[in-house]
Amino acid sequence: MWLIKENGFDKEHIIHRGNQFIIGHMKLGVRGTLDEFRRAEKVAITLPFVYDQVGDGWREPVNAFNPLFSEVIIDGKPLNVLNGHVISHEQTLDMKNAVMSRRSVIQRGDYQVTIESSRFVSSVDERLIISKFQVSIDKDIKIVIKTGIDIDIWDINGKHIEDVKLSEKGYLKVEGVTHEKGHLITCLKEITPLFENSKVKIEKNNDGIFYGIEIDAKKNHVYKFESFAVIGVDQENDDLENKLSEVLHEGYHKRLEKHSQIWNQKWDVSNVIIKGDDAADVALRYSIYHLLLLAPQSNSQSIPARGISGQTYKGAVFWDTEIFMLPFYLNTDLVSAKRIILYRIQGLPGAKQKAKSYGFKGAFYAWESQEDGFDACTDYNVTDVFTKRLIRTYFKDKQVHISGDIVYAMKMYIDRTKDFSILKDGALEVILEVARFYLDYGHYSILKNRFEIWDVMGPDEYHERVHNNAFTNQLVKMVFESVLDYEEYFESENDSYFNDMVEKLSYHHELELINKYKDLVYIKEIEDSLVIEQFDGYFNHKDINKDELFKLKLHEHEYLGGQGLAGDTQIIKQADVISMLYLFKEKYSKEVIKNNWEYYEPRTEHGSTLSASMYALTSCMISHPDHAYPLFMKSATVDLTGKSKHFAGGIYIGGTHPAASGGAYMTAIFGFSGLSFNQGIKVNPKLPQSFENISYTVRDKGKLYKVNVDRNESKIMEEKD
Amino acid sequence: MWLIKENGFDKEHIIHRGNQFIIGHMKLGVRGTLDEFRRAEKVAITLPFVYDQVGDGWREPVNAFNPLFSEVIIDGKPLNVLNGHVISHEQTLDMKNAVMSRRSVIQRGDYQVTIESSRFVSSVDERLIISKFQVSIDKDIKIVIKTGIDIDIWDINGKHIEDVKLSEKGYLKVEGVTHEKGHLITCLKEITPLFENSKVKIEKNNDGIFYGIEIDAKKNHVYKFESFAVIGVDQENDDLENKLSEVLHEGYHKRLEKHSQIWNQKWDVSNVIIKGDDAADVALRYSIYHLLLLAPQSNSQSIPARGISGQTYKGAVFWDTEIFMLPFYLNTDLVSAKRIILYRIQGLPGAKQKAKSYGFKGAFYAWESQEDGFDACTDYNVTDVFTKRLIRTYFKDKQVHISGDIVYAMKMYIDRTKDFSILKDGALEVILEVARFYLDYGHYSILKNRFEIWDVMGPDEYHERVHNNAFTNQLVKMVFESVLDYEEYFESENDSYFNDMVEKLSYHHELELINKYKDLVYIKEIEDSLVIEQFDGYFNHKDINKDELFKLKLHEHEYLGGQGLAGDTQIIKQADVISMLYLFKEKYSKEVIKNNWEYYEPRTEHGSTLSASMYALTSCMISHPDHAYPLFMKSATVDLTGKSKHFAGGIYIGGTHPAASGGAYMTAIFGFSGLSFNQGIKVNPKLPQSFENISYTVRDKGKLYKVNVDRNESKIMEEKD
Repeated sequence: MWLIKENGFDKEHIIHRGNQFIIGHMKLGVRGTLDEFRRAEKVAITLPFVYDQVGDGWREPVNAFNPLFSEVIIDGKPLNVLNGHVISHEQTLDMKNAVMSRRSVIQRGDYQVTIESSRFVSSVDERLIISKFQVSIDKDIKIVIKTGIDIDIWDINGKHIEDVKLSEKGYLKVEGVTHEKGHLITCLKEITPLFENSKVKIEKNNDGIFYGIEIDAKKNHVYKFESFAVIGVDQENDDLENKLSEVLHEGYHKRLEKHSQIWNQKWDVSNVIIKGDDAADVALRYSIYHLLLLAPQSNSQSIPARGISGQTYKGAVFWDTEIFMLPFYLNTDLVSAKRIILYRIQGLPGAKQKAKSYGFKGAFYAWESQEDGFDACTDYNVTDVFTKRLIRTYFKDKQVHISGDIVYAMKMYIDRTKDFSILKDGALEVILEVARFYLDYGHYSILKNRFEIWDVMGPDEYHERVHNNAFTNQLVKMVFESVLDYEEYFESENDSYFNDMVEKLSYHHELELINKYKDLVYIKEIEDSLVIEQFDGYFNHKDINKDELFKLKLHEHEYLGGQGLAGDTQIIKQADVISMLYLFKEKYSKEVIKNNWEYYEPRTEHGSTLSASMYALTSCMISHPDHAYPLFMKSATVDLTGKSKHFAGGIYIGGTHPAASGGAYMTAIFGFSGLSFNQGIKVNPKLPQSFENISYTVRDKGKLYKVNVDRNESKIMEEKD
Repeated sequence: MWLIKENGFDKEHIIHRGNQFIIGHMKLGVRGTLDEFRRAEKVAITLPFVYDQVGDGWREPVNAFNPLFSEVIIDGKPLNVLNGHVISHEQTLDMKNAVMSRRSVIQRGDYQVTIESSRFVSSVDERLIISKFQVSIDKDIKIVIKTGIDIDIWDINGKHIEDVKLSEKGYLKVEGVTHEKGHLITCLKEITPLFENSKVKIEKNNDGIFYGIEIDAKKNHVYKFESFAVIGVDQENDDLENKLSEVLHEGYHKRLEKHSQIWNQKWDVSNVIIKGDDAADVALRYSIYHLLLLAPQSNSQSIPARGISGQTYKGAVFWDTEIFMLPFYLNTDLVSAKRIILYRIQGLPGAKQKAKSYGFKGAFYAWESQEDGFDACTDYNVTDVFTKRLIRTYFKDKQVHISGDIVYAMKMYIDRTKDFSILKDGALEVILEVARFYLDYGHYSILKNRFEIWDVMGPDEYHERVHNNAFTNQLVKMVFESVLDYEEYFESENDSYFNDMVEKLSYHHELELINKYKDLVYIKEIEDSLVIEQFDGYFNHKDINKDELFKLKLHEHEYLGGQGLAGDTQIIKQADVISMLYLFKEKYSKEVIKNNWEYYEPRTEHGSTLSASMYALTSCMISHPDHAYPLFMKSATVDLTGKSKHFAGGIYIGGTHPAASGGAYMTAIFGFSGLSFNQGIKVNPKLPQSFENISYTVRDKGKLYKVNVDRNESKIMEEKD
């Protein structure tokens, strides 16, 4: 159950396979494309958190040069899956070791060629891609293996690397600088041919720099080589050269061993085993594979919404990370969990700048956060299919819940770890500044004697500029309460840090106001029907059936939100009230959750991968795991099946969906096995019919536990770490 | 200078002439169409303030049966301007007496027919249309004059009158009932032929009921008749019959005399004479003609935005009346001025109901007010030309300044008349309830320590859902201050009425809050440039040239507001900050007005007839009457030239523009002659170059003044009333 395997070749699947078979880590994403693929097939060697902007295009992560390019040339013409007759083709992801392999048998004329390769991105090193490539033919024939560094990079918004220089000095080298910030991007590559009798020529052209290895191939003889590539971002050439010679010396297998050791350690604490349902077992493991890939590698990193799978969503970090991914790391990898928090602490100046630009005090975090918390989100994110004009969207300026999501994550981190030191590392300052922002953004309604938050967008992005979104308002109240909770904490510790911070930030008045208004934050009423209105006036919106609404579409890709078809209806894009109920579950009864689930689910498009898992989690809470199961599978398999939007209005928006992976993990652990930590570690299983057993490892407060949940009996045992 | 005359016939002008030559009064509007015109030519005998709704169509005033229909039939075929060869055609409006006439010479074959007619709507009676019709031919020939009641009514939204019954009992009679409220609509008509030797047949069919008068016409002999029609709304037949026989007995000329006497009295106190510029003189007189037509006839009436010219704008009353028309009546006709106020007092329950429906206390007045203050405005007022879908507009729910405009009008009425009794007639209750609404709609911004008003639409309708619109916020402050001013007034009078009202309305808490927050209402700052930002963030909108913006249009009739082309630019539909500066001129220096004028005028489309006059008035304030002049002429001539939109997205929206008429009057009196009453009656002339002299009569505080403003010298003399 460790292998993801796909047989057969279909051009239609090229984009999806690129995401499905991704390898790498948070400093280097390598899409699961084939050796012979190029720009048109969306090869990407992505450098997460290295951003660049060209002209008015969207600011996005830089794609580096591609050192994985290899192809076989016979009779003067390349032979590959795109132009040959594919007899068989198999692509495999070994999740245990994070290695991608392919094996293709291709026919042309009277000969068949077998191409095999494997690749991994070393988890030991900063940016090192190691691969092996082999070819054999069922005929004696002259062949050329062309391998090198492809510089014809696939970019969505402009050519990011300029001044590209090619050179050969015992290895192939390409370097160039990024357009906006002048980052030096270097790629060194060398190969170790494991065969004799060949002639090597160097080829330099607009496509890159390549070795052309001419071989008089013997029938069924295997010609293979290993390839080592190191990619640098603002790094000294000597360092890169040293690294290259070190790995050249060690070779593929020795290096793989070191790499695998690290991956095996990761799996030891992360693997979840589901018995009785192999499809669920593999899908969940595949979700966890993605989360392991995406562990932040430094305190300046968090996790972009499309992971390391390319330039879409501007390579930016959304609330997805805090709400849908952090819980996984809190269970398995506290270093990464902490980095997710530290990234936002580093982003505080950017968040303060953003608030100021809108005339508010405090911290308004980026909706699409790049380095240093810079908001890459634009005011126009969608194109009107009818007029081809850009549509003004409100993700950036109205989705103010982002700041509260971050505080929620900080609180979750502290609650789970009891690591209060993070407060002094900057979290307290963030919390105070977010509270200050909400004090300024919200308003006191004089006659109603309550604190209201007008003109926001909740998680459901179809409804723009609403008032008193139930989700947002709860977060605001939580933020105010957190300020006072941590004031109390430092007081109880006789630590003046809180008061010092109040002094430093001139926060006396704000603290007074928080005390005065925290209980006045308007929390949407539970109606007689037990349903909670998503925002003021939502119930007055047209109550149309979801399918009926979609039938009104005049264009397949028309935008439904805002002034679009869904905007004045009760149809929502994704979980909103339901997300609020999950995040604040301790405040609501099961009956309330049940009635809201039944009201909102039929009105939800699940048009975001953040939706299904929230419905799945709450479904478990009301003892309907079998309602949860299809939603869980939807989340867990989104990158396996590729059943997600790859294009919007002609623009590529594809990539992996780590929030769905995180949501699947959360559903399995907190939903099906019902894990909770509130009163000590506990499970309250709600297994779907197909599950016999679910078992996993989890960390809590310095201890490691083995959890085994059976239909009849559950065990939680402390393990040695 | 009392006649409006148009020569020649052009089918393209039919709609415009219908508006241009309108006659009637506030109980009966008769469009200036020709005798032989029918539904297709947009004949309308409109019953203002008698509304009806059919199905989901817009609720609109009812058009009655048309008793003015007459045509000449020769050789079995009607001969008229539409199907004959028009040799000459002249249409005349005698503004002094409110009489419309036409004279047409039409050729067919070897004969020419001359048709003449005149008509007036009696100003003495409730709904009486008196006309005369004559025909002569340059050949001996058999003709038929067909005259009767046309029942094939032009309706924009549905067939409003049902159960139509035709009868003949010594006169022609049609009756029917309205669809929604079952009002009985009756039309009686009788004619007095002033010739002999004819045979009369009665014709009844789907078109109506008619006399067919067969005549052996003699060459060049004139055949004429007078026609008398009475229209009833829920009236006894006996009363209508008596009225008909009374006027039949008196005849056209005697009745015209009585009618003219009333009109001459109106003109005595309303006429304005401009010397040196005949075009301006006539245009202004024509504007005043419209305002005289539109004087409310009862305390349940005000003035609809399209006057009595038909069903467009739902026959509803907008803020146009209070801000652009009331000043005329305050100068000339206090009975009408008071009715304009009383109409809104009657509308208070409707306004409270509207506020409640949105979750607010107090009074939120109708954006499109019909009877009893019912808001006829819908949430969808515009059609997307690209998708043919309705666009959600925010006129009804966000243009909250309407309530403040009404209080502004009440204050204006009291300031000018010192008639404080209106407060006890209900105005005080309105003011208190409007203040209560604003207390509830606006919010206190805690950190900024100010009272803000978010999510509104100002006069400029291109920018939806803005925060702290300068215009709206000033009105809110004014409303709060008015409450306290009138509290002081009653106190100084030792009158407990104010306190009784506070008691009755449970207003103690509100009064406290008004005292607390009135000085905290956020008044937009005067920037260093002396310009005032129209709303929060306006200056961050795209600063594009007006013409450049219009060039981006993909469709002639596309909607520019909201998500349309203008929505995210600084291009505005109509005066907004400039309207605020005019209404609150005592608060701002001339320099501020000047800088704002220069900033905003180039950014204003003047896409509403409420725009030009505000720019004209403020232009005079900064001593640029020659900048004001073209804007004045634009307002004064809009219904003369017909240069206004008649259609929007295929829907007829034409009609007269009384707010432009009112604005033209204001510009002439308060702008060019610079009339003011603040420190006694005074003028401060700013005559445009072409004016030698402007003279007029004006009432103030029970006195009548004759004002004569010359280039060199001005005189104000008290007159006997």
